[in-house]
Amino acid sequence: MARPVLYHTPKTRGGATLWMNEELGGVCDVKLVDMQKGEQKSPDFLKINPMGKIPALMHGGVAVTEAAAICAYLADAFPQSGLAPASNDPKRGAYFRWMFFAPACIEPMMLDKFANIARENTASVGYGSEADVLGAVKTAIAEGPFLLGEKFTAADVVFGSTLNFAVMFGAIENTEPFASYTDRLKLRPAFRRSVEKNMEYLQQLGMQ
Amino acid sequence: MARPVLYHTPKTRGGATLWMNEELGGVCDVKLVDMQKGEQKSPDFLKINPMGKIPALMHGGVAVTEAAAICAYLADAFPQSGLAPASNDPKRGAYFRWMFFAPACIEPMMLDKFANIARENTASVGYGSEADVLGAVKTAIAEGPFLLGEKFTAADVVFGSTLNFAVMFGAIENTEPFASYTDRLKLRPAFRRSVEKNMEYLQQLGMQ
Repeated sequence: MARPVLYHTPKTRGGATLWMNEELGGVCDVKLVDMQKGEQKSPDFLKINPMGKIPALMHGGVAVTEAAAICAYLADAFPQSGLAPASNDPKRGAYFRWMFFAPACIEPMMLDKFANIARENTASVGYGSEADVLGAVKTAIAEGPFLLGEKFTAADVVFGSTLNFAVMFGAIENTEPFASYTDRLKLRPAFRRSVEKNMEYLQQLGMQ
Repeated sequence: MARPVLYHTPKTRGGATLWMNEELGGVCDVKLVDMQKGEQKSPDFLKINPMGKIPALMHGGVAVTEAAAICAYLADAFPQSGLAPASNDPKRGAYFRWMFFAPACIEPMMLDKFANIARENTASVGYGSEADVLGAVKTAIAEGPFLLGEKFTAADVVFGSTLNFAVMFGAIENTEPFASYTDRLKLRPAFRRSVEKNMEYLQQLGMQ
């Protein structure tokens, strides 16, 4: 089977998948999508992702969208990376838990906060309240160094990317335990490589 | 390893996991949480889910929350069910795609719609716009009969439960292709058993 193709643009949710690709030693071919030229809304790209959103992945003729889904897929497709617990390991439950928590709870909380939206019925809202989300995040990273303990996994890529973004833009305070966890992630060679590549891509696309 | 324990209350997001348990032939022990008595906020339950939300799963000493994560975990933990594509099957990419799409895109769109919230910057919002979500859902179920074709998977449980809810409460119109897909799901014996069990649970808890 041919190498996966990762569709990417800097300053999008593609940051998580670019980092994931570096954690995997660069198993994907990265194809830049020029959003300034509207390429994300081109007929060819809309066939891959009808939402016209980045990131997306093509592998074996199958389109994958949603940054977290791409990371979960790649971790399983390249098991030698050790970035996902085995199917019969109960830790895989915690792995999925935090992988879904990031897009389903942290991100909606953050977007509501940025837009000054106060929900009336927190029982019906998936993320509950801001306090609920912060409490759960603290529980997730309390023991550390990573979500599943000593072992870094793709769940840290997904959860950590969202947390990095939330801390960077002030939705979550840059205090403990958030600061230590996100600082730990930023020290990973694969993370640093992904940041450097993003800077190269920004230049290539004339975005800076 | 002991059987998983599924913490459940009717009329919550637990519906998806109850259905999933029936698709698996009842591998979990179901433990009812009485929300009228506030049991979801009891110290014991908060140790499992600090959000105080249903559903939750305990297996092998590990807590799993988020309905989609519980379904993804159970599908992999009980591979004989055939409810998840193999790790080396590219269809696993589509499987994860729609499994994440439900809580990360359909649900936030629906909650904004119910609360009459119009987002100004749809580019920053994970779900984009209502039209984006509807377009993607149509793409997902266009071929059918299920998300991955002939084979029903746990992605249909997660995505289908959210879609059922959206159609039932009017966030998505009960027209084609949504109606046929959700009707097809409701005919599954496991789905019907889960509905019957929920009715028993409602009585047990004095919720009706």
